[in-house]
Order: sequence, then structure tokens, then C-alpha cells
Amino acid sequence: MMTLYHSPLSPPCRTVRIMLAEKGIEAVLQEEKAWERREAFLAMNPAGTLPVLEDDQGLPVAELWPICEFLEEVFPERPLIGTDPYARAEARRLLSWFEHKFAHEVSELLLEEKVVKRITRRGQPDSGALRAARHNIRYHLDYVGWLSERRSWLAGDELSVADISAAAHLSCLDYLGDVPWEDFPAAKDWYARFKSRPSMRSLLSDQLPGLSPPAHYADLDF
Amino acid sequence: MMTLYHSPLSPPCRTVRIMLAEKGIEAVLQEEKAWERREAFLAMNPAGTLPVLEDDQGLPVAELWPICEFLEEVFPERPLIGTDPYARAEARRLLSWFEHKFAHEVSELLLEEKVVKRITRRGQPDSGALRAARHNIRYHLDYVGWLSERRSWLAGDELSVADISAAAHLSCLDYLGDVPWEDFPAAKDWYARFKSRPSMRSLLSDQLPGLSPPAHYADLDF
Repeated sequence: MMTLYHSPLSPPCRTVRIMLAEKGIEAVLQEEKAWERREAFLAMNPAGTLPVLEDDQGLPVAELWPICEFLEEVFPERPLIGTDPYARAEARRLLSWFEHKFAHEVSELLLEEKVVKRITRRGQPDSGALRAARHNIRYHLDYVGWLSERRSWLAGDELSVADISAAAHLSCLDYLGDVPWEDFPAAKDWYARFKSRPSMRSLLSDQLPGLSPPAHYADLDF
Repeated sequence: MMTLYHSPLSPPCRTVRIMLAEKGIEAVLQEEKAWERREAFLAMNPAGTLPVLEDDQGLPVAELWPICEFLEEVFPERPLIGTDPYARAEARRLLSWFEHKFAHEVSELLLEEKVVKRITRRGQPDSGALRAARHNIRYHLDYVGWLSERRSWLAGDELSVADISAAAHLSCLDYLGDVPWEDFPAAKDWYARFKSRPSMRSLLSDQLPGLSPPAHYADLDF
């Protein structure tokens, strides 16, 4: 069986968890405190970042993008990166949007200030960073809503890594109570639809010690 | 014919230029001042970032990673992302290393301070950022040397996007005279080998107005 080295509130780790579940691949989840820079972990990924997937032969695949492409190549039965070159380009463009632009402008700020600083005991959240992230998320929720009103799923007719990555990021922020769903009904509809998928179940039952999610986090009719 | 919207000293744009040349694909180079946020450009890539490749049917493929995968899928004759899933995972891991870790720790700092601020008239370079980048580049050159002493090319037996991305980033910094080659002979040997490839010719003849490269920049026996 494969092993996914992950952290519960890491959006790229959640992207891989959902992708594994959508493809029906069983994997052991192994929590990794990447900041401890464990030697055996650095041997798998010298960059020291999560996620890392170890396949059933013990071979590591490191970093989000390589893992997504690896899973798509090795388990092609349920395609999640589109089925023709242009659909694939669009799914990947949006994966890049969420993993870079959204991460940079929203999720990394909120998670760094509210979670990482707390775990690593590096002081209080910076209110300027929180304010910037809460401002930026509105523009992104608008974009999610705009896409979902024009297409069946974010990248087109089929559910893809675009939806998976968006749901991974937004589910982390939803755990922190930082998604203003009520102001963005189209984005909320899309997320309610995605959240009810069996592939989301494991994420919705995550519980971090000392940090509880709001009541609506795991509620499918939020 | 395809069109690549690019900027001459942008490492991800150079990655695509080298990849196109290695695959023997002709493309028109169209310089784009991304910061001007031209409407027709934003329609091709709402994230507003370079590179964007417009294929011969006028369809845009936006962002580095989607372009690399698109080119590999549509022009598979000369593979540049490895030939089996593990070789592909390693080539992609190193592409991620250079495009994220190296970019974040070295090239984005140097290019922002020395080039972007100059072009957009946003003040003087920050000496702290320059110092950090010049410190960090040494660790990365060590890693390039370490890899190249153990493998034919950075990701294994075959030249891949790992070499291409590393050369793209280092060539930009070499244009600025910021690569301490003499202290890292193994990395220098690898770069000298890569630099002599025909796919590097167009990059080595780039000339930015008012910003000349050092004499060794285009010298194959530097």
C-alpha cells in the first residue's frame, strides 16, 4: 500500500488526499512534522516540504505537482486532469491558480498566522497579514463562483484537479472559520456540491488538538 | 506557428524557450510587459503572469507547468520529462525545486531588486534582499554540482526539464553577473556543457536596453 506523508491542514496535502480518494486508491496517512526536518524525510524530499507519496515499492514521489501527474499516469482509469490537451491545460492552469496565486494571496497567509505560528510557538498572528488574506479571499470566491456558473465544474465539463485543489484550500480556511460563504452564493453552491462527495469525508473528520472547526465545517447542508 | 508571450529575463519564460528549441518547435517570441495588464493578455491568462503559449489554432496555454506538460504531450518525439513514471517524478521534482525553491530563495529576489524595480521605476535595490540571494545561491550551486557529479544530467541519464529550468534560472542571474561559478567547479562544468547546446543560442544573444551582460555571459568557454 502507498503512504502519504502529510499534514492535516496543508492544502497541497489535502489535494492529494482527495485525488487518491477520487481515484479509489487506498493509502496510509502518515502525519509528518516537516519543520522538524527528520533525516529519513529529507532523504525522500530534499526540499523538506509536504506532501510526499511513497509508493508500494517504497519509492518516493515528492511535491504536489509531480504527485498529481504521477497518480494520473499510473492510475489513468479515472482521469482527473482532463481528457484532451486543452482540457488538461485548463485544469492545470487552475491547479496553478489555487496552488500558487490563491496560496500566496490567501491560504498561506491565514495558515501561517493562525496555525503554523501557534504550533511552532512563534508569537501572535500579524493582524495586517490576516486583513490582507480576508480581503483577497473575496476576489477568489468571486472567481470560483464565476467559473461554476459557466461550467459544470471549475475547469469544464468534468470534475478535475482544479475543483480538488480549490476544495482543498477552501476546506482548510473553512476549518478556521475564514470563508465568508454567505456573501458568495455561487461559490457556496459549488462547494456544497463538492463537499458531499465521499472523497471529502476523511478531511471533514480531521480534528486538530486544541483547534476546533466551526459547527458548519463538516455539515453537508451548511 | 505558435506564439510565446514572454519576457527576456524571466526564468520560467526561458524554460519554455529552451524546451521549444530542444523539441525543435518554431515559435514567434512576443515580448509582453505583464505589469501593464493588457486586456487581451489577461483574457489569455487571468492570473496575468508569464509565460503564455498561444498554439497554432490561437488557443492559449497559460503558466509554466501546464505549458511544459502540454508540449510534452503534443510533441512527444523528443521526451524532456523522462520516460518512465519514476524518472518523470524526479524530473518534475527538480523542476519544482528550481521553479519554486530556487526562485523564492534566489532568482526572484535578484531579478526583483535589480531588474523589475529598475524597469518599473520603483526605487533602489534592497541590499538585504540582494545579500540573502547571494548567500542562498551558494547552497543551490552546491546541489547542482552534487547532482551533476552523480548523474549524466541533473535528473538522471537523460537531459530533462530539470536541466532546462536550472539553466533558465542560472542564465538570468549570469546575465546580471551574480553567479560565483569559480567557487563551484562541478556546477560550472554542468552549465558549460548545457550552455553549448543550440537550444541556448537565442537566450545568449538577448540584450536588454541599458543593461549589458558581463563578457563571459555568451562565452561558451567561460
